[in-house]
Order: sequence, then structure tokens, then C-alpha cells
Amino acid sequence: MPKLPLISIDSAVDGFSRVKLSSPTKLPDARGFLWNRAMVMQVNCRGYVNSQFMQPEPAKYSYAPNMEAKSFIQPEHSYFSHHPGRFFYLKDEDSGEMISLPYEPMRVQLDSFSFELGSSDITWSIKHSGLQITIKVNLTKDDLVECWFFSVTNLTGTVRNISIFPYFSIGYMSWMNQSATYNEKLNAIVADSVTPYQKVTDYFKNKQLKDKTFFLSDTAPTAWHANQKLFEGEGGLHQPTALQADLLGNVEARYETPVAVMQFQQRLLSCEQKNYQFLFGPAKDEAEIAIIKEKHLGYQQRNKARESYQDYLNQGKACLTVNSDDVGFDDFVNHWLPRQMFYHGDVNRLSTDPQTRNYIQDNMGMAFINSEVTRQAFILALSQQTLNGAMPEGVLLHQDAELKYINQVPHADHGVWLPICLSVYLNETADVSLLSEMITFADSTQEQSFACHIRLALDYLINATDHRGLSFIEQGDWCDPMNMVGYQGKGVSTWLSLATAYALTTWCDLCDEYDINISRQKYDEYRFAAQAINNAVNEHLWHGQWFARGITDNGRVFGTNEEAEGKIFLNPQSWAMLSGAASEHQQSDMIAAIGTQLITPQGVMMLAPSYTAMVEDIGRITQKHPGVSENGSVYNHAAIFYVYALYQAGQNNLAFELLNKMLPSLENAEVTGQLPIYVPNYYRGAYHQFPKQAGRSSHLFNTGTISWIYRCLVEELCGLKGCAKGLQIAPKLPTTMKRLSGQRLFRGAMVNFDIEQVDEIFTMEVLLDKQVIVSNVLTDLQSGKNYQLQVRVPLHG
Amino acid sequence: MPKLPLISIDSAVDGFSRVKLSSPTKLPDARGFLWNRAMVMQVNCRGYVNSQFMQPEPAKYSYAPNMEAKSFIQPEHSYFSHHPGRFFYLKDEDSGEMISLPYEPMRVQLDSFSFELGSSDITWSIKHSGLQITIKVNLTKDDLVECWFFSVTNLTGTVRNISIFPYFSIGYMSWMNQSATYNEKLNAIVADSVTPYQKVTDYFKNKQLKDKTFFLSDTAPTAWHANQKLFEGEGGLHQPTALQADLLGNVEARYETPVAVMQFQQRLLSCEQKNYQFLFGPAKDEAEIAIIKEKHLGYQQRNKARESYQDYLNQGKACLTVNSDDVGFDDFVNHWLPRQMFYHGDVNRLSTDPQTRNYIQDNMGMAFINSEVTRQAFILALSQQTLNGAMPEGVLLHQDAELKYINQVPHADHGVWLPICLSVYLNETADVSLLSEMITFADSTQEQSFACHIRLALDYLINATDHRGLSFIEQGDWCDPMNMVGYQGKGVSTWLSLATAYALTTWCDLCDEYDINISRQKYDEYRFAAQAINNAVNEHLWHGQWFARGITDNGRVFGTNEEAEGKIFLNPQSWAMLSGAASEHQQSDMIAAIGTQLITPQGVMMLAPSYTAMVEDIGRITQKHPGVSENGSVYNHAAIFYVYALYQAGQNNLAFELLNKMLPSLENAEVTGQLPIYVPNYYRGAYHQFPKQAGRSSHLFNTGTISWIYRCLVEELCGLKGCAKGLQIAPKLPTTMKRLSGQRLFRGAMVNFDIEQVDEIFTMEVLLDKQVIVSNVLTDLQSGKNYQLQVRVPLHG
Repeated sequence: MPKLPLISIDSAVDGFSRVKLSSPTKLPDARGFLWNRAMVMQVNCRGYVNSQFMQPEPAKYSYAPNMEAKSFIQPEHSYFSHHPGRFFYLKDEDSGEMISLPYEPMRVQLDSFSFELGSSDITWSIKHSGLQITIKVNLTKDDLVECWFFSVTNLTGTVRNISIFPYFSIGYMSWMNQSATYNEKLNAIVADSVTPYQKVTDYFKNKQLKDKTFFLSDTAPTAWHANQKLFEGEGGLHQPTALQADLLGNVEARYETPVAVMQFQQRLLSCEQKNYQFLFGPAKDEAEIAIIKEKHLGYQQRNKARESYQDYLNQGKACLTVNSDDVGFDDFVNHWLPRQMFYHGDVNRLSTDPQTRNYIQDNMGMAFINSEVTRQAFILALSQQTLNGAMPEGVLLHQDAELKYINQVPHADHGVWLPICLSVYLNETADVSLLSEMITFADSTQEQSFACHIRLALDYLINATDHRGLSFIEQGDWCDPMNMVGYQGKGVSTWLSLATAYALTTWCDLCDEYDINISRQKYDEYRFAAQAINNAVNEHLWHGQWFARGITDNGRVFGTNEEAEGKIFLNPQSWAMLSGAASEHQQSDMIAAIGTQLITPQGVMMLAPSYTAMVEDIGRITQKHPGVSENGSVYNHAAIFYVYALYQAGQNNLAFELLNKMLPSLENAEVTGQLPIYVPNYYRGAYHQFPKQAGRSSHLFNTGTISWIYRCLVEELCGLKGCAKGLQIAPKLPTTMKRLSGQRLFRGAMVNFDIEQVDEIFTMEVLLDKQVIVSNVLTDLQSGKNYQLQVRVPLHG
Repeated sequence: MPKLPLISIDSAVDGFSRVKLSSPTKLPDARGFLWNRAMVMQVNCRGYVNSQFMQPEPAKYSYAPNMEAKSFIQPEHSYFSHHPGRFFYLKDEDSGEMISLPYEPMRVQLDSFSFELGSSDITWSIKHSGLQITIKVNLTKDDLVECWFFSVTNLTGTVRNISIFPYFSIGYMSWMNQSATYNEKLNAIVADSVTPYQKVTDYFKNKQLKDKTFFLSDTAPTAWHANQKLFEGEGGLHQPTALQADLLGNVEARYETPVAVMQFQQRLLSCEQKNYQFLFGPAKDEAEIAIIKEKHLGYQQRNKARESYQDYLNQGKACLTVNSDDVGFDDFVNHWLPRQMFYHGDVNRLSTDPQTRNYIQDNMGMAFINSEVTRQAFILALSQQTLNGAMPEGVLLHQDAELKYINQVPHADHGVWLPICLSVYLNETADVSLLSEMITFADSTQEQSFACHIRLALDYLINATDHRGLSFIEQGDWCDPMNMVGYQGKGVSTWLSLATAYALTTWCDLCDEYDINISRQKYDEYRFAAQAINNAVNEHLWHGQWFARGITDNGRVFGTNEEAEGKIFLNPQSWAMLSGAASEHQQSDMIAAIGTQLITPQGVMMLAPSYTAMVEDIGRITQKHPGVSENGSVYNHAAIFYVYALYQAGQNNLAFELLNKMLPSLENAEVTGQLPIYVPNYYRGAYHQFPKQAGRSSHLFNTGTISWIYRCLVEELCGLKGCAKGLQIAPKLPTTMKRLSGQRLFRGAMVNFDIEQVDEIFTMEVLLDKQVIVSNVLTDLQSGKNYQLQVRVPLHG
């Protein structure tokens, strides 16, 4: 058998790429994810699955064998043998040999293994002992169901007698009531439960919950088993006792942990193939299961569902396609990055109360896909602003939604994202009509224009400053767990001060660019305030070679060289560059310090050294594990701010180097442990403190990073950024990238671009359809038309 | 090797019995439990352990590998391979053979196995391949530490080279921070974590939490491993990869799931024995671990700790020892029942807010062990009564405690337990001074006498009745999940009405017996009210052959023969017998109906048929799994009420038969799945609906049953019940028990009794120290003295 590369990319399958992993053990935590608006499933290469659906809050239908905590998704999720999964035991009835597919729980080494991630499906292709097995899972566009397809082909010249046993975890559903049995009418194992509760009011709330889990087959099983413990017996999950007998015992679960196992005895002639289809998901009652069965079981139904699911995901196509000489880079940017951006923008991380800052930034990304969604999202967010200008902690997306977890803690930054993210929307659309939209408030039916809402938000930010003019941090800013710097009402944040200045400047710039009607007085006030903040930050927070991170309630400046841990934070430097607080000299000092102290092979850490003990005037961030999340990981959201700032400063080489480092690739997969299909929220940092773990992916695909990466690619790297007059051309290719071509969809016009760096010129040359463009702005692009854009950039920059 | 019986009892070890189980697979869920005032551990025969400690709320130091929900202890707890446990891998370095002890996770069949439960220790004695292994665990009197002892002896004539690997689960501690490494100074693996939180206020609350878990050894390990996933590797827990190498790799966990594994390479000469001691538990910091080490590590320290722990448990000796011809019965009654009763009374189920009804009944049991505790508990409970007479839902035992879970739901019954349980205290002590204790209120510093508090409680109960004179049930009575009968404020409870009548009657009887000073008017009012309730119950709730269970908010009488499910409930019948509502004719009808519909081989079910679907005017009970908990299990608390009522009605044979059925024994162990060391809160019921599961133990040793069993044994079976004048003699032996002797400690006097049923007499004959007692009351017993009591009872009774 030829040795396959560990990971490979097939770029041209149905216009989308497929990423393939040829080992179930080298990247044991590697996973793909599928979603629709109602559910998400993460599928691990070994067959473990993490899935949840919304009703409207996240709920499960496949659980661990013990009572699990309800929580938000955690980083570095860990698998164990009884973790929920979808496994297929396969027994050779002639030889007695038994394996499990795709790999767990028996962990038998297979002749060949391929875990394949596409846009709308996750597939395993496996060969073993003369059998070819394909396992595939899709979701549907709208329904709560996993669609599984299992096929086995006899590659040998002899008749084979086999039994196939799909084993789908149902797990510990409820201490009040849980049971499972085979339902002949549905040809399904149906598990029943009652979501535990104790208060009468919850009974009425819970009445509509989907407390059943079904496993439905298109083929009548030879036998079945629904009792997890008895199925496993003394043999264990890796050698289940129930599989010792010729036939499963048709055993139900009665206040016992349910499982869905069926047995299909199958005789396979030489070269014969046999296909099975299975549906797995939650339901309220049998009638719902019957509807799902009618709708999705069968060859035609399956194809229809697959197509409509693909159509749904195709809505996620974004405005840029690139063609560089780096195939991996192109594949990720052209396929997987927009897919992840669409996931964020379309389903808002499957939360009913996304944090306001996430909601606004995720929807900034949607401006590159479907700007109407961005428009509606910004309006919705502003409708939850209060009259005093404060933005809410989270945006409630559902009438029954409540602010949960971190959204019950007061953060001071939500307002700054409005103008910053609005600028992308305006760049993409020039839709200034948005500014005149009349919007009510959370605490008032009074309507004010969008622009007025922005003004209130900015005024609120300006007022939330101390005697020095620095922004109060309350119980956190962008950095949630920095919760004790200012909880007594005095501590201030460098980053938030700078972000406020940048928000003010951005708003004034937008008013200039798009001729937005605001009073001269306000405009001057904002320009002045931004400058004043920059001055105050310089006066109080510049310490030697970089900006400190803030001043605590008791007046202690932190994030300086004087501390042993948390000496330097990335965000104040990036945003000082954005806000204009940092002089060129300061910038070069900062960049040098970051280079020495924060940059690692996997990217730039957000602080260093990571804290190893609680600092009571900083807070929860210092209690997190060193190198994890905000405590000094390569936190990509912070890293991409730095990249964006570097682009503004003309540091094109460094910017691209750091941007490229954060992208998952074939090259870094064995370090990160993940496949190149999404950017995780972090890679382990604390590079100098815990080098062994450094670089590992969090495997968390929820991150505000994505829309900023895309912004950097579109507006900075390619330099194809919208403005009031049209499309402005200002590419920022790194020296190493001699050429970059591609397509840019802009306000309906398709621009086929070709950017080249050449040695012999001194100023940029722009040709549109072979006509020279002098101003570097394409002003007359027509929606629906195609253009050829040639750009020649001087190589020496 | 001689075949051992599956279960055996050694009755005379250090004055306590030892129960032994000779198979790890026949009763796979069998467990023992150890506790002190700060922690409890449940130890399963296969090595799984469930443990928690109080700080002040329940917390863990050994977790599952995923994020577990925090919840109250659930029935029929289920084990799985990654369930927390304390295992010992043992490798024969010469042959390469590997086993795990006591049984999990490798599940290798051992030459001989014995799981032994004593009062203060849990021990395994195992022989395999010429090695004798003993594993033992104790707790200490006060500290948060498991004390483990491991010994291995070479029974062969040759030198043996082995490695021993204790594997103690630490598991998923925290998403904020978790790590573990070896601490050379302590010779311990120490895992560190931060209890997850998000609000600043919780930081200060959590500051004192014991977030470390330590595993400390008396012997320096050859090597160690602290990283669960890497230890296990691809081999799995049943064949860990890390054990393939000669030495463990000294691997730490850094934001990875911790585990504590040490390797001890050992050369054993023929007949040589080697002992190890390990300490495992939670701690705040290293200093605490050092203190625990100093205090408990070492031979002498261990013995001292073991003795003081035994002394602690010896405080649980109760007032009765029996000697019948049933060895199992005697063993359970003399050893295990008082132990379980002491557990309830001394640590109140390790809850900081025990339900008031449980708290009062559990402390009723303490009157047989240490009546001073009962006295203080009753005073504490009454100090949390409100001025209007209402008793709280739960009794707060700690200043930081809060009413949780079920204690946030309003139940109507808490007041009735006061006089009922007080009667046991007065019977045991004649301490009428309690009635004059001055006690404040939850909502007032005003002081009132204990007797006045009782009056307020009874007045409150009398007033909480409808136009018919029946008691409102609110969102539940004794039966918590019967929460929708009266949640609209109209539904009434038969049981609570009868319990109110019984409480009133009991109080009046106590006032008569102990000459308690209450107003004539109140006394008459209470007697009248009790009669009126009995009449009302008869008028509205007698349906054919038994009493219904109540009337719902919309006026529907339920618990009658007209329904398909929930036709008959046990409690209304038992309490109609106690309250005097049921005539003799009614009683015999009821007893017959119960015999037909509720009695099963494992005891009497609390209702039948079990509900299989939600009934919206009854509530949550109907949603529980049929045959589980209140939905028609053999719920022993209800069953013992019936037994007590049968004794009052002179149904001595039936009473004893049902009492005996609920006691765990050698005979029923294979049906119940548990060992004869505690009475569980239920055995599975729904005997006619789900016969396969019927009889299974819940394995939950928290139950209000215990104090009532003990009361039945002391006051009814033996008939050695206290009264104002002294000890009243009225045994109620079943016909089958010809003779019963024993010791009864009563108000300090030790009465050695011998009760005999004889054919030839017609009235009971009582001899005290060979003197005839005419009145059947022993009036002159002196504290500190010993007496010989001979009782002859007519057999035809």
C-alpha cells in the first residue's frame, strides 16, 4: 500500500476543497464541524462527536455516560473512551475478526484510513481485510438530524459474511426518566427522557423540549440493543460482551443508560456493495420522527437534503478569491476562511445572547458575504442600546433569551466597535442610508437615527473616563477576565482609552469620507477628545519601550518592565498604532519589544510572561493556566489587531508573516494538532515558560479573529478597499510574494485582479481593462460587470 | 481453591461485623461508604469511588474526565470505565503479566477476590499468581483525607520482581486552570486548579476553596505520571501505553487532565511482604498537605488515625441489641442499621440545608443514639420557624448556607413532623424541660417556649385547610414531586390532612402523658380538629376499598380505582390507620387492597400502577420513570410508615414481614444488587409493569426510613418503649419468632431482655430481675445499672 501523506488537500472537488487526514492517531483531536441554524456538530477523526441543538438554548441529544455540566464550549476539549460518538463495529462472521470504525472504540489498526472534510460533509474512506468502507455524515438545511451513510464493498473474490453494528451514543439523559427501546413502526431505536427540573414554572417552559433521541435506519435490523451497560458488559467498550453472541439480544433500557445499536447481518458477494442510511437526532414525539423519516430517508430524499444543505453553505461565499503560489494559503483563504466567517455571521456562534462585541465584529465579517445581514445586525444591536448611550453586554436574539454567564459582568468596551465595524460595512456598500435608519432603545420607544445612536455611544465612552481622561475599565474591556483592575470604579484601561480614541477618529474619518451629516461642534469635539486621550495615554502609560496595560483601582500602573509577569501586553501597542498615540519612534520601540518578548513560531502572544499566580488588582486572567486563553496564549483575535495595525503602519512584511503564522496549514498541523479548516481562537502560548505545550490549538472555532483576517486580506494585503468614490487600490504584498491574482467582488462588480511586484518602477501603476487609472481609485465599476485589473507595485516599497 | 459463598458475614470482628463479597462481577454496583463530618466516600467493589467534601457546600477532588454537573446524589448511580476510581496496576517484571486491582480497569479474572466492608474501613483481599494483596482504605475523624494502605506478599518460593502503579483519578478539575506534577518535598503528586467562576464576588467567596488534589506516598516512587491522556495513550485505560515502558516518563499535566500515578519497582523475596501507605484528598495549599502528611503518614500515625476514626464511629452505637435466630437480621440490626442512623443524625446527609422533614426525622433517630443531639436539632429547627408558625423548607446548618434545589419549592408538611418526632425524644428521655426552652424565630428575636412553637406550627397547619377542612398541598407534601395537585392554591392532600390529624392527636397524647402545660381550650380545639379532619377525609376521600390520595386544583379526586394509573397510594392508608380515620372494617379493606395491588417480593410499593405519562394535575411524580423513586417504587420511607401503622393496628405478623422485606440480606442481594450494610431509599417497583428491573436497589443510603425502622424495632417489635413513668413492656413478635433476646439501653439503665412467645398463657408475664411486674411498666430503672428482664407473651396473641 502506498504511504499517504499525513494530511493532503484536494482543491478541486465541486468548487470546494477537501482536507484529508490519513491517520486516526497522529492528530487524535482533529475534527471538522457542520452546522445549520438549529444545530452544530463537531466530528472527531476517531468517531467522537460533540453535538448540540437550539431549543432555543443549547441542548443535547447524545450525552456522556454521567451527568454533564451545562456550559459554554470550552477550549482544548478532551476525549475519553465513553465520550459521545458514532461508531460502527464490524464483525467478519466467517473469521470472527472484529474491528470498529472509523477507529474508536476498539482502536484496531486499519489497512488504510482517510478522514475527509468537505464543505458540507465529513467522510471516512477505509479499507480493511478486503472490505472498502465509506462513512459519511451531512446535516440538512433546516432540520435537527444527522444524516449518516454507510457503505461496504467486498473487494475480494470470495463471498463474505459480515455483521455491521452502528453504535450511536445516547448516554445519561436525565435522572428523572430515561429509557430506550426499538420502535418497529419507525424502524428506529427511540430513547425517551424528561429534562430534569424541580419548579412548576419550569414544567411549562420545558413542555416543548425535544426530549427524545432517535436512531432511524433505512434497513430493518437483524437485531438491536438499547442498553449501554448490558451491551458493553464485562468486555468493555473495546470488546463489548453483547457482540460475543451471534445476535444482539434486543434489550431495552429502563431507567438505564440508553444507547442505539443495531445489527445488520449481511452476505456480500464478490465486488458487491451494500449501502445503509441512518438518521440520528432529537425530537419531541414520534410524530416528529415520522416527519423526519418521510423527509430524509431514501435515496432521493438524501440527495435533495444534501443539495439544499450545500446550497445553504454556498450562501457563505465571500468577496475574495486569491491565487498566490502557496496552494495551502489559497485553499484556506478561498474556502475555509469564508466558511468559518459565514458560520459566525449566520448563526452567531449558536448563542441566543452573543456578547455585543462579538456580535458586531462577527457581523462586520458578514459585510464581505452578505451586507444586508450586517445592516440588520447593527440595527438590532443599536435597538438594545439604552438612552444613556450604553451598549448591552449581549445582544438578545430570541424573545426568550437571557443574558447568561459572562454577559452578567459589566464590560466597558461594547460601544467602541460600532464605528470601527461600521467602516467595513460602508467600505463594502457605501450605503449611507443606514445612518438615517430610525431605531428605538432598550429602555425607550423613542426613535433616533443610527448616526445619533453612534453619537450617544461615543458620548458615553467619552464620559466614562477619569480625571486623567483615561477610560474606566469596570469589570473588563475586550479582555473579559481582566475583571479586577477596575471593579472598584477607579481602574482604567490603556487599551480601552486607545480604542475609544480610535473609534472617535474612525467615526470622524467616516463622516469625512461618506459626507455624514453631524454637527461641526461634535466633530471637533471628537477630534479633540481623540487627541486628548492619546496625550493622556502618552503622559501616564508610556513606560520605556512600550505602553502599559492600565492603572488599577489603587493607582498601580501594570504591564511594564517592572513586573516579573505580565510585563508587556500586545493590545495597547497595536491600538496605539491605530489611534495615532504612538510616534514613529515609539512604534519602532514597541515593534522591537514585541519581537523579542511576544513573537513565537506559532504567532504573537497577547502578553508575556504569562501569570503563574493570582494578581488581585488584575483579576481572573491571572488565574487562568499560563499560556492558555487570555493569559498569554497566541490569542489570535489580539494577534490580528496587531497585524491590522502593522498594515496601517506600512509594516507589510511583518504583518503578513504574523497573519500567515496564525493560519492553520499542512506544515503546522502536527504542532497545532488541528487540520487547516479553521483558525482557532488561540494557540498555546507561554512559549518560554511551557515550551512543550506551546503552539497547540484550542480547537475552538468560535473567534472574533476571522472577520479581521478577512478584512486584512481584502483591504490590506490585496489593497482592494471600498471608499466613497469606489474601489481604492493599494496592495501591501510582502516582499516574498511577487505576485497575487484573484477575484474581488465589489458592490456587484467582479474585478479580476493581478498584482505584481516589480523592481524597475517607483510608483504604483494601475490598469483597468488596460486603461491607466491615475487616481488609484476605480470610480465607475458597474454591478454585474466583469473587469480586468492589473496592478504593478514597486518592489522596494 | 475452595469456592467461597458470594456474600458472607463475619459477625465478631472487633465487636462489629464484616460483610464480604467474593466476586467483582456478580454485584458490580455493590459499594460501601465511609464518612466523617467533613466528607463522604462511596467505594465500589471494583475500585470506583465517588467522594465529596464540604467547604461548606459539597465539592470534589476526584472528578470524571468531563465537566460534571453539580447536583444532589442521584439514585442508581452508574459506573463507566473512566469513572473516578482508585486502581492499582501490578506488573510482573519477570513474566510481563499485568493485572489491575481491585478489578478495574483491566478486569482480569483474579485467583481469589474479597471485598470486605467493616465499620471504619473498606478492604480488598486478593490472591493472584502467587501474590497476596491487601488494599484498605480508612478515613480519619476530622481531616479531609483518604488513607490507603497497600500490601503485597510473595507467597511463592522464588524471588519476584514487580512494579506497583497506584492510579488515582483526579480528572477534569476546571476549564480555568488545571495542572499536576510531582512535588519532591512532599513526595506527592499535587494537582492544582481554580474553581471556575466569572463574577468578582465569587472570587472572594472562592478564595478559601481547596482547589488542590494531592496523592502522597510514604515511599519514594521509582517514577511517576500525572497526565491522564498520555498515561493511557492508544492502549486505553485497560492497557495503558505508559505501562509498556520499563519506567513511567515523569510526565506532568499542563492544562491537561491530571491523574496521580506512581511506579514502585519492588523485588520481593520468597514470603516477603511490602507495605505502602498513600494519602489522597483536597487541600488549599502545600502547607495544608504538609500538615496532613505530618499527621497521618507513618505506621504510628496511621494507627492513631484509625483508632480515632473508629472511636468516632463508635459514637454511633444505639440503644438496642437483638439476638434472634436469624443471624443476618441480628447483624444488620445490631451493626449496620445504627451506623446508617448515626450517619444521618450526625452529618445530616452532608447537606448544609437538609429538608426540614428529613432533618427532624433523621434527628428522631439520633434520640436512640445520643438524645442531646436530637434536642439541639429540634431547637435549631424551631429557631428557623417564622412567627406565623410556618416551618422552613430546609434547615440552614451553616451561616453561608442557602436553600437549594427542592428547598426553593413550597411544601406544606414540615410542621407535622414536630410532635410526631418529639414523641420519640420524650419516650427516650422524658426530658420535659425541652418544652420550656425559649427559642427565637427566623423573622423575630422574640422568644417563645418550645411548646408555644409547636402550638404555632399546629395552628398554622389547622389554618392551611380548605372549606372542607382538608389540608392544602401547595407544591408538594411529604411527596416532593406531587407538585401540581395544588399549585394553584386549591388542591388538597389526603395524606397531609391525616398527618395533621395524627400530629394533633400525638401532641395531645404527649400533653396527657408528660403532663405538658397547655390551655384546656387549645387541647380541646386540637382534639376536635383532629376528629373533624378524620371526618372530612372519610366524607370526601373514601372511595370503595381505600382512601384516595387527594383532590386536585380543579376538584378531581385522584388515587382511586377509577383511574388506569396511580389507582392506589400507600401513604393515605397508613396514616388513616395512625390518625384514627379508618374504622376496623375500612382497615381490613385497605390491608387487603394493599396486599393485592402493592405488595411485591421486595416490599410494598408506594403506589400502583406506576404512571407512564404526565398527568398535569398531579405533577412531576408522573414524569419519573415508572417504578423509580416516588413513581411506584418500593419507597422504603413510605413502606416503613405502613409497617408502623400495622403495628399500631396489632398486625404484628404482616408488619414484621414487610419490615423484614426491606432489610438488605444475603438472600436478596442478587436481586437488589447491594450488600446488607444499609437500607436504600428504594427498590425498583412497577413490579407488574417492568418485572425485569423490579427489586433493584437505588444504592442511595440517604433515606428517612432508618429512624422509623429503628423506632419499630425498639418500640414495637421488642415493645420496649419509654413513657412518663418508665419503660413500658409490650412486645409485638411475629408468630414465626418464638424468642427474641437482647439488650436495651434506656435512660442510662441496661436492660438485658428475653422475650418468649409461649402457647400456654393468656396474658403477658413480665419479670424484672425475677420479680413480677404487674403494670407492665418498669418504673424504677436506675441509670448505670443492669437489669434482667424476662417477658412471656401468649403465642396466640
